Amino acid sequence: MISAAIVGGTGYTGVELMRLLAQHPTVDLRLITSRGEAGTRVDCLFPSLRGHVDLVFSEPDNEALAVCDVVFFATPHNVAMRSVPALLEVGARVIDLSADFRLRDAGIWEQWYGESHHCPELLDRAVYGLPERHRSEIATADLVACPGCYPTAIQLGFMPLLSNGLVDRDNLIANAASGVSGAGRQGKLANIFAEVSDSFKAYGVDGHRHLPEIEQGLADSAGAPVSVTFVPHLAPMVRGIHATLYARLTEQGMESDLQSLFESYYSNEPFVDVLPSGVNPQTRSVRGANMCQIAVNRPQDRNTAVVTAVEDNLVKGAAGQAVQCMNIMFGFAETEGLYFPGLLP
Amino acid sequence: MISAAIVGGTGYTGVELMRLLAQHPTVDLRLITSRGEAGTRVDCLFPSLRGHVDLVFSEPDNEALAVCDVVFFATPHNVAMRSVPALLEVGARVIDLSADFRLRDAGIWEQWYGESHHCPELLDRAVYGLPERHRSEIATADLVACPGCYPTAIQLGFMPLLSNGLVDRDNLIANAASGVSGAGRQGKLANIFAEVSDSFKAYGVDGHRHLPEIEQGLADSAGAPVSVTFVPHLAPMVRGIHATLYARLTEQGMESDLQSLFESYYSNEPFVDVLPSGVNPQTRSVRGANMCQIAVNRPQDRNTAVVTAVEDNLVKGAAGQAVQCMNIMFGFAETEGLYFPGLLP
Amino acid sequence: MISAAIVGGTGYTGVELMRLLAQHPTVDLRLITSRGEAGTRVDCLFPSLRGHVDLVFSEPDNEALAVCDVVFFATPHNVAMRSVPALLEVGARVIDLSADFRLRDAGIWEQWYGESHHCPELLDRAVYGLPERHRSEIATADLVACPGCYPTAIQLGFMPLLSNGLVDRDNLIANAASGVSGAGRQGKLANIFAEVSDSFKAYGVDGHRHLPEIEQGLADSAGAPVSVTFVPHLAPMVRGIHATLYARLTEQGMESDLQSLFESYYSNEPFVDVLPSGVNPQTRSVRGANMCQIAVNRPQDRNTAVVTAVEDNLVKGAAGQAVQCMNIMFGFAETEGLYFPGLLP
Amino acid sequence: MISAAIVGGTGYTGVELMRLLAQHPTVDLRLITSRGEAGTRVDCLFPSLRGHVDLVFSEPDNEALAVCDVVFFATPHNVAMRSVPALLEVGARVIDLSADFRLRDAGIWEQWYGESHHCPELLDRAVYGLPERHRSEIATADLVACPGCYPTAIQLGFMPLLSNGLVDRDNLIANAASGVSGAGRQGKLANIFAEVSDSFKAYGVDGHRHLPEIEQGLADSAGAPVSVTFVPHLAPMVRGIHATLYARLTEQGMESDLQSLFESYYSNEPFVDVLPSGVNPQTRSVRGANMCQIAVNRPQDRNTAVVTAVEDNLVKGAAGQAVQCMNIMFGFAETEGLYFPGLLP
Repeated sequence: MISAAIVGGTGYTGVELMRLLAQHPTVDLRLITSRGEAGTRVDCLFPSLRGHVDLVFSEPDNEALAVCDVVFFATPHNVAMRSVPALLEVGARVIDLSADFRLRDAGIWEQWYGESHHCPELLDRAVYGLPERHRSEIATADLVACPGCYPTAIQLGFMPLLSNGLVDRDNLIANAASGVSGAGRQGKLANIFAEVSDSFKAYGVDGHRHLPEIEQGLADSAGAPVSVTFVPHLAPMVRGIHATLYARLTEQGMESDLQSLFESYYSNEPFVDVLPSGVNPQTRSVRGANMCQIAVNRPQDRNTAVVTAVEDNLVKGAAGQAVQCMNIMFGFAETEGLYFPGLLP
Repeated sequence: MISAAIVGGTGYTGVELMRLLAQHPTVDLRLITSRGEAGTRVDCLFPSLRGHVDLVFSEPDNEALAVCDVVFFATPHNVAMRSVPALLEVGARVIDLSADFRLRDAGIWEQWYGESHHCPELLDRAVYGLPERHRSEIATADLVACPGCYPTAIQLGFMPLLSNGLVDRDNLIANAASGVSGAGRQGKLANIFAEVSDSFKAYGVDGHRHLPEIEQGLADSAGAPVSVTFVPHLAPMVRGIHATLYARLTEQGMESDLQSLFESYYSNEPFVDVLPSGVNPQTRSVRGANMCQIAVNRPQDRNTAVVTAVEDNLVKGAAGQAVQCMNIMFGFAETEGLYFPGLLP
Repeated sequence: MISAAIVGGTGYTGVELMRLLAQHPTVDLRLITSRGEAGTRVDCLFPSLRGHVDLVFSEPDNEALAVCDVVFFATPHNVAMRSVPALLEVGARVIDLSADFRLRDAGIWEQWYGESHHCPELLDRAVYGLPERHRSEIATADLVACPGCYPTAIQLGFMPLLSNGLVDRDNLIANAASGVSGAGRQGKLANIFAEVSDSFKAYGVDGHRHLPEIEQGLADSAGAPVSVTFVPHLAPMVRGIHATLYARLTEQGMESDLQSLFESYYSNEPFVDVLPSGVNPQTRSVRGANMCQIAVNRPQDRNTAVVTAVEDNLVKGAAGQAVQCMNIMFGFAETEGLYFPGLLP
Repeated sequence: MISAAIVGGTGYTGVELMRLLAQHPTVDLRLITSRGEAGTRVDCLFPSLRGHVDLVFSEPDNEALAVCDVVFFATPHNVAMRSVPALLEVGARVIDLSADFRLRDAGIWEQWYGESHHCPELLDRAVYGLPERHRSEIATADLVACPGCYPTAIQLGFMPLLSNGLVDRDNLIANAASGVSGAGRQGKLANIFAEVSDSFKAYGVDGHRHLPEIEQGLADSAGAPVSVTFVPHLAPMVRGIHATLYARLTEQGMESDLQSLFESYYSNEPFVDVLPSGVNPQTRSVRGANMCQIAVNRPQDRNTAVVTAVEDNLVKGAAGQAVQCMNIMFGFAETEGLYFPGLLP
C-alpha cells in the first residue's frame, strides 16, 4: 500500500485520477489540493465520488505532499515546475500530467509556452511517461512527465511504421479529433454547450503545443528528425481522441505486411490493442478504459498508409496513463486497478 | 420600411434577432450596440451572418438609438430599465426581450431579482408581448415586454384550460426542459459541453425567476389567482423548450372535448399549432421556427389533463416573438418575415 | 465462485451485464446465447469487451444453461417465460431483466403486453427484484423479476412518502426522462441519431407499459391503491433516467421534515444516496454506476413535494440491479463487484 | 412560376428540398412521390412542414411527373436511372440528387455500385451540378447530376490549388467528417443514437463511393489525373460536413499567396465564402444555409497546404445545391430563395 497525493484536483484529469485511485487496491489517496477550492468536500464538487472519496480539498503544502509516496500534478502548465524541485529534494516521486517536463529542450518549451522554464536542469532527469517506449526508465524514475492526450495516440499509431523505417519521415500527417473534456473544466465561452454541440471544427491549425512533443517522440522512434503536419479538431463529444494518421510508404513499406507488423509490435502491450484487419476503432469502445485501440490500412493498395487510433483522452491520454506509470514505478502489476472494460454504449 | 436597432446584440437572442431581421422585407437594421464588443464586426463574432449583416458593434448611445423606429433590448435584466425612460421620452418604440418590464408589481420584481426597479412607473405602461393574449394592446404600445421562454410555452399550454375554468387552479404543475442556449452565451462552467452533454438535471427547483411571470399571466387567464409548481430542467440540446403541464380536471373539464377546445381556441393563431389528437410534439419540429406546437392528452381517461407544448426558446420564446410583436406594432402582416418551416433534422 | 449464463446478450443490458460480470470477483461467466448472433465472438460485436470476455455467442440451449448457477435473461418480453419453467424445474436460479414476471396479475400483464402469459402460475413465485423493498425474499428466491428502469427510480423516489402516508395517493405525478439506450439496441428509425439528437419529446403519454408495474409497487408501499400519471420523455443522451415526482402533501406531510425522512429511510442502503438538502441530482453523476441519487424538495413551502431521482438506466435500472440481486441470492456482499464511482464527465 | 415535383421525398434530402421549395418565390411544388408512404400527408411525416407543404405522398407516376417543369430525384442510387430516360423523352428537366449520373464512366460506376448502369448513354448528356465549375452547362442542361456531399466540399477546397498547379497531384489527402444525417433516414442499427452519440470513428477507409467522383472532378480541375486518399469519419452531430485537405505545395505553390488566390478564385461566387486569413470555419456557421465556408493555411510555413471547408451536407451538399442548379437552369437569380443565414447556435 502506498500513499498518494494529487495537486490540483479540480479539473477533469483530477476527478479521473480520483476515480481510478479510489478503485486501486494498493493505493491510499491521502491528500488532494486546490488553491481555489480549499475547504470544499471533494464529493461536493464531484457527486460521482460520493462514498468513494472522503477528502476535503486542502491548500497546496509541500510538506504534506512530501510525506506521500507519490505526488500527481494535475495542474495547468507552469505550476508543477515551481514545486517539483523541492519535492524531489525530499525524496518524493512525482508524476506530472502537465506539459512542464515533456520537452527535453528548454528553448523549445519556452518558444511554445511563452515563458521561461523554472527548472530546465530537471528536463533531462524527467522520463517521458509513455510505457510503450520508456517502460524501464519509468520504473526507476522519480520524475515522470506524462504525455499529452494527442501525443499518446499519435505516437502509438506512428511508432511501428517509423521505428521500422517504412514511411517517409518528412511528410507525416496527423489529423486528430478530440472530445471537449480535453479543453478542461473551465468556464470558457468557446467550450459551452451551445457553442460546440452539433458542430465540428479544426483549431490550432497554425500550431498546437502538442506538435513539438509529437515530433520529439517520433524522431526518437525514427532515429532521425521527422516533420508532422498536425491538425487537431474539436468534436461534439465529452471524451475521446481519434487520430487518423497518413504516411507515404517507402518501397520497403509497400512490401511489408502492415497488419502483422502492428500486431507483433504491440503483442506484449496490455494497453494497446491492434484490431483485426479491416476493422477501424471508434472512440466509444474505449470510453473510460485505459486502452488505445489501433488499426492500420492501406486504401486501394496505394502508397499511403492510414492508421487510426483511439483512446479516452482522460484515461490512456492522461489519468490512466499516469496510474500505469505509477504501477511501473512502484513495482505493481502494470494492469493493477486499470484493467476494466470501457462503458459502451 | 422601418429602421431598427438592437441593444446588446452579442448574446443568442441578439444573433437570432439579427438572423430574423436580416431576412425581414420591411425592416432595415441600422444599429447594434455592445459595450464589450464595440468596434468588432458583427460577422466576425457570428460567421453565420457573413454577407447578411454588414454592421459593426457600436457603443450604446441613446441619441443614435432614438432615431430608429424600433429599439430591441436583448440585454440581461437590469439594463433596459436604465435606458428605456429616455428613449420613450423622445418617441422611440421599445421591445424589451429581458425581464425588466414583465411583472406588473415592482415589489415582486424586486423580490425575485434582488434589486430595486429603476422605473416602476413604467410597469403599467408596458404591454406583455404575448400576442395570443394581448394583440390589440401590443398594436398601440410603445413599450412591449416580451415574455420569457418558459412562460410562453407554459401560458400557451394552460390558457385554454384556465380561461374556460376546466381545471383546478391551485395545483398546476409545469414540468419543463430547456436547451442550453437558454442559459445564454457566457463562459460559465455550469454550461460547458463536458458538464451538460449526455446528462439531464432539474435546476431552480426552489424557485425560478419565471415563476411569478407565469403565475401573473395564468391568473389573468383564469380570472383568479393560480398556484403553479414549476420545475425547469436542463436538456443536452442547443435549442428548444418542452413543457409538460399537468392539471386536475374539474367536473366540467371531465366532460369537455379538450382536443376541440384547443383547436378552436387557437384556430386563428398563425404561430400556435394544435397537433392532431394522439400526436405529441417534439422540440426539433420547431427548431428555428416561430411556432409553438401543442397537444392535449387525458391519460387513461383519468382526472388529469396533460398538455405538451414545444417552441424554439430563441424564436417563439424570444427573438421571433419580438419580431411578431414588431409586426403587430407597425401594422405589418403578423407573419411578415416570420413564416418559414423549422430545420428538421 | 459461481457460474453464470446470459440469455440474449446482444442488447444493451446484455453488454452491460457482461461489463459488470467480467469485473465481478466471484462470478465466472460461462455462456452467452443469441439466436441471431450464434457463432460470432462477443468482442466482435462489442469491441469494448476485447480482452475481458472471451466467449462466442451460442444458440440457446436449456441444458447448457441449466448447469450454470444463475441464468440472466436479457431478452425482450415474451422470451423468458418460455424457458424459465424448464430451468426452474432442474434447479437453476433465474434473474429475469425483462417484463415477464414483474406483474403479479396475469390479466393486467396480458392487457398491457397484448398476449397471453405463458406461465401465470409462476407470477406468485417470482420475487420483484427491488432490493430496497424485497431484500429478504430475493435472498431465497429462485426467480427474480428485475424492475424496469423507470419503475426503479420512480418507486425509490415515492416510497418514503407513501410508506409514511405523507402524500395524497390519488394524484401522484411521475414525469421522467430517459436516455436513448433505454429504447434498446435495434435499428428503428425513431431512434436514429438524426431523429432524436438535439430534440426532446414526450412519448407513450396515453399509457406506457411501466405504469402498471409502478402502480403495483407503489400500492404495496402505500398499503392501498395509488393513481399515478406517468409521462416518459426521450432525452438526447445515451444513458440515464431522471424522474421528477410530484405529490400533494397531506397535513402530516406538511409538518414532516422530508429531508430527514429520506435520509433515515435510506440510511442503510448502499445503492440509494440521498443528496444534501438543496442539491438536486444529475444523471451524469451516476453514469456507469449502480446508484440512485435522490433529492426531496418542497418549493416555496407550498403543499407539493417534488422528488428528483436519477439512475443509469442500464445499471441501477437494469444490469447493475440484476447483479445486486445475484449478490443477495448467493450470499455475497451486496456491493461485491458493484461499488465503483460513475464516469464523470 | 415553375412547377416542381420530387421523387422519393421521405428522406432527409427530400424534406430539406421541401423546406427550400416551400420558401422559394417562383416555384410551385406540385407533386411528391413515395412508394412506401403513398397516401400519407407530408406534414404527418414531417411536422416541421405543417402549414407549409399541403401535399400527400403519391405513387410514382411518370405522366404526372412529366407535366412538371422540373423533377428532382431524392432517391437512393439505382432509382433515377430507371425513370429518367422516359422523362427526358417527354421534355422534362431533371435534377438528380443521387449518384446515378455523377460518373462519366459507366465501368467505374458499375465497379463502385456493384450493378450495371441502366442508361450509360445518358452519362455524357448529364451535367455535373457543381455551379462553381459548370455554371454555363447547367444553364442549358436537361439532366443535372448533383454532386455528393463530400465531393462538394472537397472539390471546392482543392480546386483553387489544383487548377493553378500549385500542389502535388499524386498525394492529395482528404480527411472529412460528416454529421449522421448523411447516412440517411433509415432505421439502421449503425446509426441509432446510442451507437453514434458521444463517439467518433472513421468508416469506409478501404474505399468510399464518393472517391471516384472526387478524383474525376479534381482531375478535371487539374487537367491531369490525381490521386486522393479519402477517409470519411462519422461525427456525433446531425448536419455538417467538415473537410480537412492536405496537399504538398510545389515550388510555385510555396511562392504563392494562397489567401489571395482563394479569395480571388471565389470572388464572384455567392455560395462559397473564403474566410479571413487565420480563421478556420466550423460546421455550425453554415447550418441550414446554402454556403461553403473555406480557409487555407500553411502551418509553420512548411511545404503542406491545409484547406478546411465546411458545408451543411443537406443544403450546399444536397438540396440547396439542387435548388441553386434549378435557379441557373430556369434563369432565376442564382440566389433566389437560397440566400439566408444559417441557424447559429
